Amino acid sequence: MAFGITPGTRIRKSPFFDATVAAGVTDLTVYNRMYMPTGFGDFEAEYRRLIETVALWDMAAERQVQVSGPDAARLVQMLMPRDISKMKVGQGRYALLNDVKGRLINDPVLLKLAEDRYWFSIADSDMEYWVGGIAAATGLDVDVSEPDVSPLAIQGPNAPAVVADLFGDWVHDLKYFAFRQADLDGIPLLVARSGWSKQPGFELYLMDGSRGTDLWNRVMSMGLPHGIGPGAPNVVERTEGDLLSWGADTRPDANVFELGMEAFVNLDMEPDFIGKAALRRIRDEGPKRRRVGLFIDPPSLNASEDNWPVCDGAGNTAGSVSIAVPSIRLERNIAIALVDAAHAAVGTRLVVDTPDGARDAMVTTLPFIQPGG
Amino acid sequence: MAFGITPGTRIRKSPFFDATVAAGVTDLTVYNRMYMPTGFGDFEAEYRRLIETVALWDMAAERQVQVSGPDAARLVQMLMPRDISKMKVGQGRYALLNDVKGRLINDPVLLKLAEDRYWFSIADSDMEYWVGGIAAATGLDVDVSEPDVSPLAIQGPNAPAVVADLFGDWVHDLKYFAFRQADLDGIPLLVARSGWSKQPGFELYLMDGSRGTDLWNRVMSMGLPHGIGPGAPNVVERTEGDLLSWGADTRPDANVFELGMEAFVNLDMEPDFIGKAALRRIRDEGPKRRRVGLFIDPPSLNASEDNWPVCDGAGNTAGSVSIAVPSIRLERNIAIALVDAAHAAVGTRLVVDTPDGARDAMVTTLPFIQPGG
Repeated sequence: MAFGITPGTRIRKSPFFDATVAAGVTDLTVYNRMYMPTGFGDFEAEYRRLIETVALWDMAAERQVQVSGPDAARLVQMLMPRDISKMKVGQGRYALLNDVKGRLINDPVLLKLAEDRYWFSIADSDMEYWVGGIAAATGLDVDVSEPDVSPLAIQGPNAPAVVADLFGDWVHDLKYFAFRQADLDGIPLLVARSGWSKQPGFELYLMDGSRGTDLWNRVMSMGLPHGIGPGAPNVVERTEGDLLSWGADTRPDANVFELGMEAFVNLDMEPDFIGKAALRRIRDEGPKRRRVGLFIDPPSLNASEDNWPVCDGAGNTAGSVSIAVPSIRLERNIAIALVDAAHAAVGTRLVVDTPDGARDAMVTTLPFIQPGG
Repeated sequence: MAFGITPGTRIRKSPFFDATVAAGVTDLTVYNRMYMPTGFGDFEAEYRRLIETVALWDMAAERQVQVSGPDAARLVQMLMPRDISKMKVGQGRYALLNDVKGRLINDPVLLKLAEDRYWFSIADSDMEYWVGGIAAATGLDVDVSEPDVSPLAIQGPNAPAVVADLFGDWVHDLKYFAFRQADLDGIPLLVARSGWSKQPGFELYLMDGSRGTDLWNRVMSMGLPHGIGPGAPNVVERTEGDLLSWGADTRPDANVFELGMEAFVNLDMEPDFIGKAALRRIRDEGPKRRRVGLFIDPPSLNASEDNWPVCDGAGNTAGSVSIAVPSIRLERNIAIALVDAAHAAVGTRLVVDTPDGARDAMVTTLPFIQPGG
């Protein structure tokens, strides 16, 4: 499909919007009611840049939900399926937020800014309302708000060198998801080791929306010797590396067991959290579906735009594809699918109903390519 | 700006998607993480159709949040700034949902399906999480979910004739926001008198997502003698008629007093609701800003894509434009703006900073055109 996107102020522009337009952005998506660049007109070059050198991405649509006040830690723990009592200021944690039915409703990164202040750096659903609704109903002494904070991602093998040139060698010592407050010629920001790729990467959390173009240009200048260029979250790289795309992979109702992400959920810890009882039930009964990898037979397919149906050899529905792409590094069609548990064993033969007709496929392990692979 | 929208399953397709593609949709927006058509390539013809005959709109992105169970009415009342105790099954109410700070966070229509079952037919923010979070925290005996329900709007002066041809003359007796369950050759739906235009109109709430193309085609066939054709929410008509666009007009933090919508909020009634205390404070202190109409001097402007700044004669910031368009019926530039209360009096001279340079403007009353005008 090829459609224009109608502009309007209901959908916000990122602080980096003008800079990405100047850099030649051609395609967008909408994420948290904000435009997010998805392409600059040369998909393969953007992929190579991410894998081989370094790319600069406008990730401002990854908005922050700030929880602050005396009861902030208590409220955050109500939402978090991991014990946060030992979390230190400057640390981050991958956070799988669940509703009372055990459905995964967002997969943010939780950042601890202070003993009484946290940010959820969110995927594409309005967690400000989830957190705010719970705060309103419990009457906890917290403030829930969206601060003026917009991540800019620097991703690729040369990202650490670029960020060290900008801020100093201390950035090499940051652990994954850890962050530190800094500034760049007076532009206030956090430097975090994170990003939505499986390549080495950092995110600069800009804390002054009026300085977006300044920050973009400074990073771009400093990165030139390292081969930096504009880019965006890359559907092929994320599929090869098995990065979860909330909404696309999770459907309206998948849970962490179906998604194979139960390692990030502690059902046996002391603190209670929303969804714990439902997830225990799901664990005890066993998940009904499984997130699996598929190799789909040649010839090369275009990236999927729909949840292609998946059947077993007898034509019975077995599930559907979350994303299918032609892998550039593996030179074959790969897919992530959600299939009935009965069809999830590695080596199972399945049939995918693509727009180009039925194709044989085989279940395989995820990820398709290991980090550094 | 002119950008392509990148397809992907994170953003859903409506049950009417294929039908709108067949009808020639060219432009889209994203609303509640669903594609929503915004244009079919001839803006003026689509406007004329809405004003003079009848248009068919895919409004599936206006998703439903269902609250059901023994405590459903109790939970709904916690959210609703109007007393719902006398509401009857089959009635609808415009619902201005507020957070604890008194900010307007959505402006759905509330439909009462049964004594223990309600739908919020929502604007573009995830009210399922707001309602679900409050339900989770209070422990009320309710289920919060998104049913398989997708509105299809029939808008324009000939809409009542089309809908009467489809369902019978009883549709003429439906009051505004009232609805009745019906079916069309076995397609289950609700017939509601509603729609996001100031023209006569109905919405058919399709209750089986697999029948979208069927329903679209049946309505299109029956409407042909009445001049029906494809269309979409129309930015000029909505500005002329002063329909609120949540997100665009409300910014992140406007309240019902600033928006001039306090008539839909009862701060003196017995039942408590979230935001009541904050809204009472705002009422007592007086709103800081006001939603006003502006006439902007010629020549004709393109529709605004940004919140153009508004200043007073001395160059001091006075507010900003929510939407500015060239009115087709009035043949002059009109705008809706949010300005400081000090600059809100009718007749106040202001200056708007447009992409074509500064333009003189004058505050006027809303709406620009009365229904039937």
